[in-house]
Amino acid sequence: MRIEARLKELNISLPEPIKVPPSFRQTFPFVRVHDNRAYVSGHGPTNPDGTLAKLLGKVGAEVTQEQAYGAARLTGLAIIASLKQELGDLDRVEKWLRVFGMVNSAPGFKNQPAVINGFSDLIIEVWGKEAGRHARSAVGLAELPFGLPVEIEAEILIKP
Amino acid sequence: MRIEARLKELNISLPEPIKVPPSFRQTFPFVRVHDNRAYVSGHGPTNPDGTLAKLLGKVGAEVTQEQAYGAARLTGLAIIASLKQELGDLDRVEKWLRVFGMVNSAPGFKNQPAVINGFSDLIIEVWGKEAGRHARSAVGLAELPFGLPVEIEAEILIKP
Amino acid sequence: MRIEARLKELNISLPEPIKVPPSFRQTFPFVRVHDNRAYVSGHGPTNPDGTLAKLLGKVGAEVTQEQAYGAARLTGLAIIASLKQELGDLDRVEKWLRVFGMVNSAPGFKNQPAVINGFSDLIIEVWGKEAGRHARSAVGLAELPFGLPVEIEAEILIKP
Repeated sequence: MRIEARLKELNISLPEPIKVPPSFRQTFPFVRVHDNRAYVSGHGPTNPDGTLAKLLGKVGAEVTQEQAYGAARLTGLAIIASLKQELGDLDRVEKWLRVFGMVNSAPGFKNQPAVINGFSDLIIEVWGKEAGRHARSAVGLAELPFGLPVEIEAEILIKP
Repeated sequence: MRIEARLKELNISLPEPIKVPPSFRQTFPFVRVHDNRAYVSGHGPTNPDGTLAKLLGKVGAEVTQEQAYGAARLTGLAIIASLKQELGDLDRVEKWLRVFGMVNSAPGFKNQPAVINGFSDLIIEVWGKEAGRHARSAVGLAELPFGLPVEIEAEILIKP
Repeated sequence: MRIEARLKELNISLPEPIKVPPSFRQTFPFVRVHDNRAYVSGHGPTNPDGTLAKLLGKVGAEVTQEQAYGAARLTGLAIIASLKQELGDLDRVEKWLRVFGMVNSAPGFKNQPAVINGFSDLIIEVWGKEAGRHARSAVGLAELPFGLPVEIEAEILIKP
């Protein structure tokens, strides 16, 4: 339980598994596993109880860049919680491969990379540079579900 | 021909292979296969004859959420037709892995997941829950080619 | 050095490795390699010295479709330069698999595929049709980092 120990050392508590809003008919899993790959569905930031974080809106308008950095970090925690639920043991994560970071962007907001750093910093804190680093895009979406400020999907190498 | 039988049972006819608009210089295949993976290019909804469906515009403005659900289902049919053309036999599809669902979103439209359910519902109807479920993001794009209301790309596990 | 010879034959010079703007804290690699896959982070167009090309803004407004085609080609050159730096030898690239082409789109600009052809045409010129062709989406983003007109990410099959 190396990663669990690392989370404790960093004083990081994972949120509960995601609780989707009542209106949301969920037709897909949060993580899809095949062989040595875990495909992670788009996640947003959650509260400790697994409900969606209330910080909604466009980054550069209702949400500041600094708040959005925090939202990207919370999104990372939600993804780690989903991985724990799906994989059982977080030590099965061998390497982060690809991350697609989407920022709900107000017109003129051009600093998506600084927002998604909230996610990348967390993953490297927890897994270290060798396992944690990932190919990444950080881009500006017109709208995200429910008005999420940030949504992130990923592909991960795992122990089968 | 298990999947063909299932399509017949569901009374689903696949459209003809995609006919791109005359102005469209196509520099890429609709499906790229390597080993046990099929990478599916971004598809939009088509008519039975393979031409682009005429329902164009932004969801939440010119196109309603319900119409867009239908467009996502048509997009799924176009993708299945492309897979049939590339793979020969749809039974070569073993598992849907990752789906990226893009909704051409009018300002303030935040229900992308309900739109992309039109695709996910179809795939699970046809392949069943084990093979058909997929990691998914459903997000709001600023513009899509030709004004398509929906565009979807995917990664699939196949029998080599 | 087959690809290097091909670049010379086509009279193509690769740019220097990317020099990110001073404000940019880079938390991720430009290419992430595992086994037989290279995952390419989102790239934009660069100058020969590796700095970001100055052509910034939305396609269909500040940037014309023709200029954006050129920017997509420059983005391809920047990606090839990153691959050379990461892989050492470009002949390790076996097959282009998946390309995600993002166009910073002014309201009403709907010709993203013609823009991303600037990238696809280059890759097929250099690698040929069999190795170079790739599944592709070409879509309209609301905003891109720094106001880049084009950003492209990719997944490639490589010799391990």
